[in-house]
Amino acid sequence: MMPPGAKASGEDDLIARYFRPLATDPGAFGLIDDAALLKSSSGDLVITTDAIVEGVHFLADDLPDTIARKVLRVNLSDLAAKGATPAGFVLTLALREAKDAWLASFASALGDDATAFRCPLLGGDTVSTPGPLMISVTAFGYTPPGKMIRRSGAKPGDKIAVTGTIGDAALGLRLLKGGVSGNVLDKPACDFLVERYRVPQPRSPLAAILRDHATSAMDVSDGLAGDLAKLCAASDVSAAIDAKSIPVSEPVRKVLDAGQVSFEDVVAGGDDYEVLCTIPENHWAAFAADALRVKVAVTMIGSVAAGDAAPVFLGADGKPIALKRLSYSHF
Amino acid sequence: MMPPGAKASGEDDLIARYFRPLATDPGAFGLIDDAALLKSSSGDLVITTDAIVEGVHFLADDLPDTIARKVLRVNLSDLAAKGATPAGFVLTLALREAKDAWLASFASALGDDATAFRCPLLGGDTVSTPGPLMISVTAFGYTPPGKMIRRSGAKPGDKIAVTGTIGDAALGLRLLKGGVSGNVLDKPACDFLVERYRVPQPRSPLAAILRDHATSAMDVSDGLAGDLAKLCAASDVSAAIDAKSIPVSEPVRKVLDAGQVSFEDVVAGGDDYEVLCTIPENHWAAFAADALRVKVAVTMIGSVAAGDAAPVFLGADGKPIALKRLSYSHF
Repeated sequence: MMPPGAKASGEDDLIARYFRPLATDPGAFGLIDDAALLKSSSGDLVITTDAIVEGVHFLADDLPDTIARKVLRVNLSDLAAKGATPAGFVLTLALREAKDAWLASFASALGDDATAFRCPLLGGDTVSTPGPLMISVTAFGYTPPGKMIRRSGAKPGDKIAVTGTIGDAALGLRLLKGGVSGNVLDKPACDFLVERYRVPQPRSPLAAILRDHATSAMDVSDGLAGDLAKLCAASDVSAAIDAKSIPVSEPVRKVLDAGQVSFEDVVAGGDDYEVLCTIPENHWAAFAADALRVKVAVTMIGSVAAGDAAPVFLGADGKPIALKRLSYSHF
Repeated sequence: MMPPGAKASGEDDLIARYFRPLATDPGAFGLIDDAALLKSSSGDLVITTDAIVEGVHFLADDLPDTIARKVLRVNLSDLAAKGATPAGFVLTLALREAKDAWLASFASALGDDATAFRCPLLGGDTVSTPGPLMISVTAFGYTPPGKMIRRSGAKPGDKIAVTGTIGDAALGLRLLKGGVSGNVLDKPACDFLVERYRVPQPRSPLAAILRDHATSAMDVSDGLAGDLAKLCAASDVSAAIDAKSIPVSEPVRKVLDAGQVSFEDVVAGGDDYEVLCTIPENHWAAFAADALRVKVAVTMIGSVAAGDAAPVFLGADGKPIALKRLSYSHF
């Protein structure tokens, strides 16, 4: 698009230099066409879109390689939770200026992840903005027909599972913002938490396993408590979670035990990008074995219950833990 | 995603109130899932993405209904030029604040266009930003297998056509910015040009006709001269354009004749969102008849030539018109 009086070329050069090398899929047409192509497939196409904004989802001094990984991975996390195998993505990049060093690092990391997760760059749009850096990714994945895992299939009696550990990223962000006194955690522990905030680990190997076993699934991005409430609402069920069974990392355990963060900080924090899913009891053993085979840690944290009550988190005394907030909202 | 300490809910309410009514396609799941679904199809899926930024692609005081129409229509314009029938879109909305009146108007206009162009809302992401409003759309369309029209198929001897009129939108923007003295154009003429800038007219009815006849096509978004150069480069050809045959509206003709804008302003302006295509000579009559049938004006403006020289615009004297700039680039 062209407001009169604007600067001469540069955008095409930028795309050719940094992003064309990533556009290895034939459907990307080397990024010289107006559109990308996904060939007809016998599968359903799953589409997810997530944007990140400087100062909101990442910090102004975050490095371009972690920003690139994060924006792709938050979308890959959605695809994994839906049981979809990655097919490709398109990228919208709104930049204040085109800095070579920044773009080279961003594109290199994006390309590495695109290769690692077999999710090639198909196309995009690069625009200038006078405001904060903003990056939007729309990612595509395939499932066999009718096999996308929805939020809405959970049934009373199903077991509730999460992957990995919960609360690391929220604590990592808090560390970056100076909100945790440092004496409880050593540097490797702090680095681990910050890395968990900056570079999520999409549970892509679990996608096919979820298709075989899960009645519902979503990724935990806005906090376990709030996301579980959404899953329950979509499935028209309730849930009981055994708080002490929620998997936490050693550093999170330490700051919890030291009273530096609350249980609420862990389950209503965000940026976990772990999978939350429901598994029928008679599938649990096979699900756990399959997850072990692909080296994704899964932990049973509770059960689906009938009714439309809000999910409860039960403490060691068997009583519900009161939560003042469940998750984050932008508005 | 959830930085600790952020505000309580609202985002879900916003989506439910304003955008769920637009999500009529079953694959949108009422916007309560993490992903959307396109059912398997025998056709190829064409994907295009275009973002618009406040202060860059639209003005801060533009009304929400025209902003909504523009962001969807610039993507529909791409689909039309690629010969694709719309299938749906996802929306990323980065807002400073959630104003009800703004959102109601935005969503209502978006819904009207989604219905009119049969391109339903499938999903999206709504995030907060401290900066300018930014909206990104990724749109999907189908073609029969192998039938997407690329930029790269033009052959020497093909006739070059554009739809509609060229230069209206660039002049409309210039009027909004106060860059044209007003005495040549009356108010209806000014309104026409501004409307052409604010609300493009995607040439969707031409999509199927392009599939039958065009060897290459793209939409004119960054200026006819620059976009033609891109099409020629992708097709490894050159082109000769008869400048006086380029279709211009009556208001543009007036300001051209009055010397208030130059030929360059018309062909290197942007935001036209007309289709530029190449048609084999023996298809021209059928192409023109088919376009007439669907009421899309098409004009032959020149011919594809062999070689890799830059396309030339020939004046009334038969000599090339020198152009200092061809189009807009963001960087």
